[in-house]
Amino acid sequence: MIVEMRKGATTAEVDAVVERAKNLDLDVQLNLGTDKTVVAVLGSNTGQLPIDTFAVLPGVESVARIMKPYKLASREFKDTSTIIDVDGIQIGGDRVVVIAGPCAVESEEQLFQAARTVKEAGATFLRGGAFKPRTSPFSFQGLEKAGLEMLTSAKAQTGLPIVTEVIDPQDVNLVAKHADILQIGARNMQNFSLLTKIGKTNAPVVLKRAFSCTVTEWLTAADYLLAGGNSKVILCERGIRTFEDSARFSLDMCSIPIVKKFSHLPVIVDPSHAAGHFSLVPSLARAALAAGADGLLIEVHPNPKEALVDGLQSLTPSDFARLMKELEIIARALGRHI
Amino acid sequence: MIVEMRKGATTAEVDAVVERAKNLDLDVQLNLGTDKTVVAVLGSNTGQLPIDTFAVLPGVESVARIMKPYKLASREFKDTSTIIDVDGIQIGGDRVVVIAGPCAVESEEQLFQAARTVKEAGATFLRGGAFKPRTSPFSFQGLEKAGLEMLTSAKAQTGLPIVTEVIDPQDVNLVAKHADILQIGARNMQNFSLLTKIGKTNAPVVLKRAFSCTVTEWLTAADYLLAGGNSKVILCERGIRTFEDSARFSLDMCSIPIVKKFSHLPVIVDPSHAAGHFSLVPSLARAALAAGADGLLIEVHPNPKEALVDGLQSLTPSDFARLMKELEIIARALGRHI
Amino acid sequence: MIVEMRKGATTAEVDAVVERAKNLDLDVQLNLGTDKTVVAVLGSNTGQLPIDTFAVLPGVESVARIMKPYKLASREFKDTSTIIDVDGIQIGGDRVVVIAGPCAVESEEQLFQAARTVKEAGATFLRGGAFKPRTSPFSFQGLEKAGLEMLTSAKAQTGLPIVTEVIDPQDVNLVAKHADILQIGARNMQNFSLLTKIGKTNAPVVLKRAFSCTVTEWLTAADYLLAGGNSKVILCERGIRTFEDSARFSLDMCSIPIVKKFSHLPVIVDPSHAAGHFSLVPSLARAALAAGADGLLIEVHPNPKEALVDGLQSLTPSDFARLMKELEIIARALGRHI
Amino acid sequence: MIVEMRKGATTAEVDAVVERAKNLDLDVQLNLGTDKTVVAVLGSNTGQLPIDTFAVLPGVESVARIMKPYKLASREFKDTSTIIDVDGIQIGGDRVVVIAGPCAVESEEQLFQAARTVKEAGATFLRGGAFKPRTSPFSFQGLEKAGLEMLTSAKAQTGLPIVTEVIDPQDVNLVAKHADILQIGARNMQNFSLLTKIGKTNAPVVLKRAFSCTVTEWLTAADYLLAGGNSKVILCERGIRTFEDSARFSLDMCSIPIVKKFSHLPVIVDPSHAAGHFSLVPSLARAALAAGADGLLIEVHPNPKEALVDGLQSLTPSDFARLMKELEIIARALGRHI
Repeated sequence: MIVEMRKGATTAEVDAVVERAKNLDLDVQLNLGTDKTVVAVLGSNTGQLPIDTFAVLPGVESVARIMKPYKLASREFKDTSTIIDVDGIQIGGDRVVVIAGPCAVESEEQLFQAARTVKEAGATFLRGGAFKPRTSPFSFQGLEKAGLEMLTSAKAQTGLPIVTEVIDPQDVNLVAKHADILQIGARNMQNFSLLTKIGKTNAPVVLKRAFSCTVTEWLTAADYLLAGGNSKVILCERGIRTFEDSARFSLDMCSIPIVKKFSHLPVIVDPSHAAGHFSLVPSLARAALAAGADGLLIEVHPNPKEALVDGLQSLTPSDFARLMKELEIIARALGRHI
Repeated sequence: MIVEMRKGATTAEVDAVVERAKNLDLDVQLNLGTDKTVVAVLGSNTGQLPIDTFAVLPGVESVARIMKPYKLASREFKDTSTIIDVDGIQIGGDRVVVIAGPCAVESEEQLFQAARTVKEAGATFLRGGAFKPRTSPFSFQGLEKAGLEMLTSAKAQTGLPIVTEVIDPQDVNLVAKHADILQIGARNMQNFSLLTKIGKTNAPVVLKRAFSCTVTEWLTAADYLLAGGNSKVILCERGIRTFEDSARFSLDMCSIPIVKKFSHLPVIVDPSHAAGHFSLVPSLARAALAAGADGLLIEVHPNPKEALVDGLQSLTPSDFARLMKELEIIARALGRHI
Repeated sequence: MIVEMRKGATTAEVDAVVERAKNLDLDVQLNLGTDKTVVAVLGSNTGQLPIDTFAVLPGVESVARIMKPYKLASREFKDTSTIIDVDGIQIGGDRVVVIAGPCAVESEEQLFQAARTVKEAGATFLRGGAFKPRTSPFSFQGLEKAGLEMLTSAKAQTGLPIVTEVIDPQDVNLVAKHADILQIGARNMQNFSLLTKIGKTNAPVVLKRAFSCTVTEWLTAADYLLAGGNSKVILCERGIRTFEDSARFSLDMCSIPIVKKFSHLPVIVDPSHAAGHFSLVPSLARAALAAGADGLLIEVHPNPKEALVDGLQSLTPSDFARLMKELEIIARALGRHI
Repeated sequence: MIVEMRKGATTAEVDAVVERAKNLDLDVQLNLGTDKTVVAVLGSNTGQLPIDTFAVLPGVESVARIMKPYKLASREFKDTSTIIDVDGIQIGGDRVVVIAGPCAVESEEQLFQAARTVKEAGATFLRGGAFKPRTSPFSFQGLEKAGLEMLTSAKAQTGLPIVTEVIDPQDVNLVAKHADILQIGARNMQNFSLLTKIGKTNAPVVLKRAFSCTVTEWLTAADYLLAGGNSKVILCERGIRTFEDSARFSLDMCSIPIVKKFSHLPVIVDPSHAAGHFSLVPSLARAALAAGADGLLIEVHPNPKEALVDGLQSLTPSDFARLMKELEIIARALGRHI
């Protein structure tokens, strides 16, 4: 941390900064400029210290962080890229995984039809929500336990492993019984009770980025899972909230190379929630692949017109099949495969 | 809802829109323009319908919502302003309430000292967090149950009713025993499990606005509480996330008159979390009062330099006392009192 | 336009809305709901009317726009995609153009070296700024006229047509003499004096999106150029400003399919200004291509370490050559070529 | 500037950083941590150096700026608050100035009526636009020279000094003849040609903040004016663009105390453009005053229903008169006057 003292700060004020650093077992180096004194506070754990530790002291003008606040998710902590094995499928390696299916499990018929068609088109995982976080209390909230059981049946029929969301800490164990990969939704990225609970399990988990959080905060949220002992964390970019209103969210494509640069964890992309409209999904899916994503999370519904949730952003089975063909060609051009 | 058909949409496509509306018991009026057909779908519950209901149909270009998605929180639902009585203190009337105290309960000594000084300066409620949602797993997470008990003691000493945060649905009953007002933090505004649980209690609750959510989403989150039967909802603006980085968040002052225009619920302001720096708090607090806020939530710490959490944004007792004097003068100029 | 009257609006208030519409030669259809009256105002030019035309009238609750505010740039106005021919190079067709070169023209030596290396690697156009809009008055402001002459020499040497920025209306004619394509920078997207002046020329023009403007505003700015009679408008996405701070701007990849859907104009992408760091450029460039961009604008400097402007986001000649090979493979996989 | 070297950076890489600093006559202090080397580059002009100066060098991980990029606008450069005298009216002292009038000059009748009513209600200056920057080329663009002459007549009638916008560098001298204060609109805050031209005049100037720029960039734009020799710069906050869509822009109230803390220049607030709706203006105006603004810029139209531009955000004369009374009471409570 770099502590910039105010112009005219007293020697006693500078000393107080130095003393606080030393009490925390940190090294200190003083830079006495002509105008101002700057104190460099050094040590490998300074990233986990709040800025306020020094910023509250009298005579301090500003504090700049050098170390990142996340630790376990960083490449400085673990240099080699993490590859996560789920049912023999490797996530984070050469293979690009495609997780596809409906936003919400609505019925056996809907789910099984979706499962068969995404399997046929080459998807790697089946997704479907049994617990749905809905903006309004008057909207459909999901089939809950019954939905989980349908997912288990769909897996039995198609062999596709299941990805499904958990929204309440008390449901983690229940959902983990039915899911091959747990999903933490964007609105729960900083639900620390939920993160703590899932961190204590051994279940692979997709951690969606909150639409309002920086990449740094996203990796710090991953630290909650990793700190609990769960090392199977897959990040998922799904768009951030900006002023632009022609799509539902702005997919932050640059987060892909940034995550790859600073973290060892695999990262996938959800173009469906970012776009909010099926017509934009193929373009974003192709782009995410070309940007270096390790996988895609795509909403597919057998009949979007009758979907209970997010029909507008769902691909039809035939649109999905066409997209999969395009993705395979691009993946090969990039030296990867689906 | 206004459904705009694409140029060249067929009669069958228009008919499908009309039929879906009729199946939902909604009225329809067709506007056959020279270029395009526009279908107005009318009915008092269209605000609670998702846009997708019509947007997924073939031939539809766009759908515009006329009714707001929130219902119970709206002035259309309840015209008169809600006044909430907590221990004989009215929130939402002429009185401006001031909720003050430390960000986190750290010890009996710290809390009692804070309680005494804010009481002396004229605060109406004591705040203090026992459960703390922290961005990093390596930060202090609060004293939890022990903290709640200290809050109860502080109330016994000073007579100040208590405002404290609950972050996990399973702790709602525990926290409600110690708190006069529950607080839902910004990161939990769309934690629907937590909202649902608190909606079923009778406890007054401060619902902080998520730093990434619109006023509309905030009022729709309030609908979760109101739909559960809890009518004692106090809104709290605390800043939104923008590109501006000179303060921690951008306090959205305009949300005050907007909430007053569209909702019957009282609204207070937290200048401390918005600013992130004590030197900016008095200016924002005065402004919030002048904008029409029904109260303020201000962090005060007996010794900010030693605070475990958010020391930089905490006022000292003497700064707080000085601010209270300014606020009283402005309140009187506006025909209110503290 | 859809004019929603307030609950309880009087007949006289509704009549005033209808009368104003009729005075503007617009059609009107009344929707008398149980709760509210909604007036649909119809006509092919309603997109160009300000919302305020009706929103200011007493008894009006809100006004929603159905038609887009841009006209000449829309696919409704011109259905077929525009292909722009510059020196025999077609922009907007199957070919993906690559505009490459240094941010600023610094010297003959620097520019000629850059020109030769980007030509060799397969670039289609040479870029280089002679007039530089700089955030601080203390920064290098460009070589101005001398820089333009160097660009002309570089073209003579390499045959590469020139793209260069113009920032002051009074320099338009001068710059147009030296440039094959004029560039309007992001900070000038709403410099209406400049747009008006360039609209009156016949010069092909790259219109960069302001980092703070919506796609709708960008296409409305294109209308300024088109309305003046200049039909050779190429749009350029270069990132928008958001809360995310790990890259300089957030490249809005979704704007590519959205522009393609709503406008007939070609659109290219500048990954260099979006990223702000050379290490992120290849990933974003590949993604933009896969998303459907008609071209790329990439900063290349013979020696980024010595660049006077934006060295950090410039590729070295060898990095650029490597990227061009990747781009060619992806372009072919997509059925296009460079 | 603090230059953080990558883990494992070589001695040669560190030396290159040190050498570049020394070549720029800057002091250097090395911090050899256990993990990384950090180089502090010290000197009073480092704020005006681009980050890239060091960030482009091999082995550098990141560069953090300590000094602000603006200089002449800063309190470090000039400690005492600047008070600007215009026609005997002091801006930046105890008096709160109110600049009021219509968005656009539409006719003599409209302007004179507006001028008389704002004068009567106690306004200090008359505003009115003769050159209008409009988003669409199909909108009313202002009366231009004829509008300026009407402003001069209005001043003759009422004695109110004039504030009016200039949008093209070539019109600066013309507009300066008619205006007591020039206005630079939000979309031109980074129109560096315009800033440079106005910087060379001696005319008092209101510099509106771009809706997409940080306070730091705003003060750096002020440096363009100050560097040209024009010291009469008045800053004007008018809202920033965020995701919130219930008002036209989000008024960044916190920018008031921040400007006061870091700059010596006076700062005023335009609640009308921020709100976009007349019903929100009084609340924001009162708040701006309480936050510490030195003045207000308020749109008033004799008949908002017939306004050619921005009628929805204009106050009627009677609403303005009522607001002025409220403002006077608050100003007195704060120890100021209007």
